[in-house]
Amino acid sequence: MATVIDGKALAKKINEQTTQRVEKLQADYGITPGLVVLIVGTDQASERYVRNKHRTAQRLGINSIVRQLPVDISEAELLKIIQQYNNDPTIDGILVQDPLPDQINEKDVTRTILPEKDVDGFHPVNVGKLFIDDSTKYPVSCTPKGIMTMFDEYGISLKGKKAVMIGRSAIVGKPMAALMINAGATVSILNRYTPDIKDYTKDADIIVSATGQLHLLGPDAIKSGAVIIDVGQNMNEQGHLVGDVDYDDVFDKVGFITPVPGGVGPMTIATLMQQSVDLAEWGMQRGK
Amino acid sequence: MATVIDGKALAKKINEQTTQRVEKLQADYGITPGLVVLIVGTDQASERYVRNKHRTAQRLGINSIVRQLPVDISEAELLKIIQQYNNDPTIDGILVQDPLPDQINEKDVTRTILPEKDVDGFHPVNVGKLFIDDSTKYPVSCTPKGIMTMFDEYGISLKGKKAVMIGRSAIVGKPMAALMINAGATVSILNRYTPDIKDYTKDADIIVSATGQLHLLGPDAIKSGAVIIDVGQNMNEQGHLVGDVDYDDVFDKVGFITPVPGGVGPMTIATLMQQSVDLAEWGMQRGK
Repeated sequence: MATVIDGKALAKKINEQTTQRVEKLQADYGITPGLVVLIVGTDQASERYVRNKHRTAQRLGINSIVRQLPVDISEAELLKIIQQYNNDPTIDGILVQDPLPDQINEKDVTRTILPEKDVDGFHPVNVGKLFIDDSTKYPVSCTPKGIMTMFDEYGISLKGKKAVMIGRSAIVGKPMAALMINAGATVSILNRYTPDIKDYTKDADIIVSATGQLHLLGPDAIKSGAVIIDVGQNMNEQGHLVGDVDYDDVFDKVGFITPVPGGVGPMTIATLMQQSVDLAEWGMQRGK
Repeated sequence: MATVIDGKALAKKINEQTTQRVEKLQADYGITPGLVVLIVGTDQASERYVRNKHRTAQRLGINSIVRQLPVDISEAELLKIIQQYNNDPTIDGILVQDPLPDQINEKDVTRTILPEKDVDGFHPVNVGKLFIDDSTKYPVSCTPKGIMTMFDEYGISLKGKKAVMIGRSAIVGKPMAALMINAGATVSILNRYTPDIKDYTKDADIIVSATGQLHLLGPDAIKSGAVIIDVGQNMNEQGHLVGDVDYDDVFDKVGFITPVPGGVGPMTIATLMQQSVDLAEWGMQRGK
C-alpha cells in the first residue's frame, strides 16, 4: 500500500513557515523580501504561472512585482532592466519567466541576474556550487529543492540508495541528480538515448521522472516499495493532467508516490517563495 | 583481445600540437602563453608534480613560473599573490598545487582565481558551465577532459552508452560524469555508500574508476568488451604503481583499457598544457 506524498499539504506547511519568516523579518528588521518577475510577451501559460506566483507571494507577505514587457523588447533593453533590479536594494529575487522570444538569448539573461538574486538558481556560479556541494549558502533550482524537502518530510533517506533520474535538463534533471549525489545516493541519469530505461528503473529505490512522456512507467518497470517522484505534466487521452507514471496501475506496488496534480507542482512554487525569503535573509547577513 | 589506450603516446601527440600552437601564437601575435604554479610548503609529492608540470611547460614553449611559498603563509597573503597574477596580462593560467596547509581555505583560493585564468577548471562558474553544457568556452578539470580526448582518439562514442563513474570527487568524478552526460551517455555515479558496485559495472559499456582502491574490479565485475578507464594510482603489495582495476586479469575480457602507469596520468599533464594555451587564445580573442 503506497504512501501518497501530499505536495499540496506540504506546500501549505512550507508557505505557513514562509509567512512567519516574512513577519519576523519585518518585525525584527523592518525588511520585506522583494521578488520581481519579468514576463516577456503574452504567452497564456506563462501568464498563468506568473499570476500564480504573484498571488502566492502577495499572500505570504512578499513584496511581489510583476513586469510585463513587450514581446519585441531587445535583449539589451531586457538586460538593462535586470541590471536595475540587481542594483535595487528592495529586490532580493529576480525571475525571468520562460519561454523568451527568439531575439533574446536565455543564457545572457541567466548570467546577468546577480547570483545573490538568482531566485531560480540557474546562474552558472550557483549551479557550480551545487555540483561541488559547496558549504556556503546559494539558491538551487526550485523543483529539485522542493523534492528534497519532500524526501525530508517523509523520512526518505538517500544515502546508499539506488536512485534514477529520468531526464537531464538544466532545470530539473541535472540539479536533482546533483542533490541526490551529494546526499549519498548512487544516481543514474537517463536520457532519450538510454536504450531501455527499465534496465535502471526495475532495481531503483528512488525514481524521479521528468520527461513529459505519458505512460513512461508502469508496474513492470519498478520494484516493489520504490519511491516515485513524478515531475511530468502531461495531458492524457481524456484531457486530464497526469504525470509520466501510470499512477493507478503502480499504486499498490510502490512505497511512496507523488500524485499529479498535487505533488511536485505546488512544492515548486512553495520553494520559490521560501527561496525568496532565503535570499532576503542571506542578503541581510551579508550586510546588503 | 583488448586495445590498450596508450596515454603516453597520445599525450606526446597532444604536446606536439600544443608546441605548434605556442609557436603560432608567438609568430602571429608575439604572445607567449604564461602559466604560474603556486606551491605552498615543501611536500615532496607536490614538488615532484610541480616540477613535472614546469618542465613540460618549458619544453613546449610555455612561459612557466613556479613560486614556492612558505608553509606558514597566511590566506590573505596567498590571495593577494593570486590577485597579482589575475591582474598580470602575461599570465594566462594560474594553478595552486594541492594540498594546502590548514590555515588556508581551498575554496577561497579556487574562487579568487579569475575564472578566465582558472587552468584547473575548478572555479564554481566553470563547473556550472560544464554541468549545464554551456556553449561558450571555459576550462574543464584536466583529468576528465584528457579522458574525453582519449575516447575521441580511439573512436569510442558515448551516445546511448551505459557509463559508470566510480567516485564523485569535484576534481574527477563529478566533471567526468558531466562530460559523459553531455555526450549522451546514461551515467551512473557510484560512491562509497553504493552497496554493490558490480550491480552497475557488470552491464556497463564504459567504466571510469577513480577510487584509489586496489583490486576494485576484476573480470567478474565487467562485461565482455567494456571500455575501462583507470584513474586510480595505488601502490600494490609488490610496491608497484597500479590502478583500481586488476589489469592483467581483465585484459582478455575488455575492449579497451588504460594502463597504470602510462594511461590517464600523462594525459592529465598534456591537457593542462593544452588548456594553458586555450586560455591564452581565448584571452586574445576577448581582446585581453
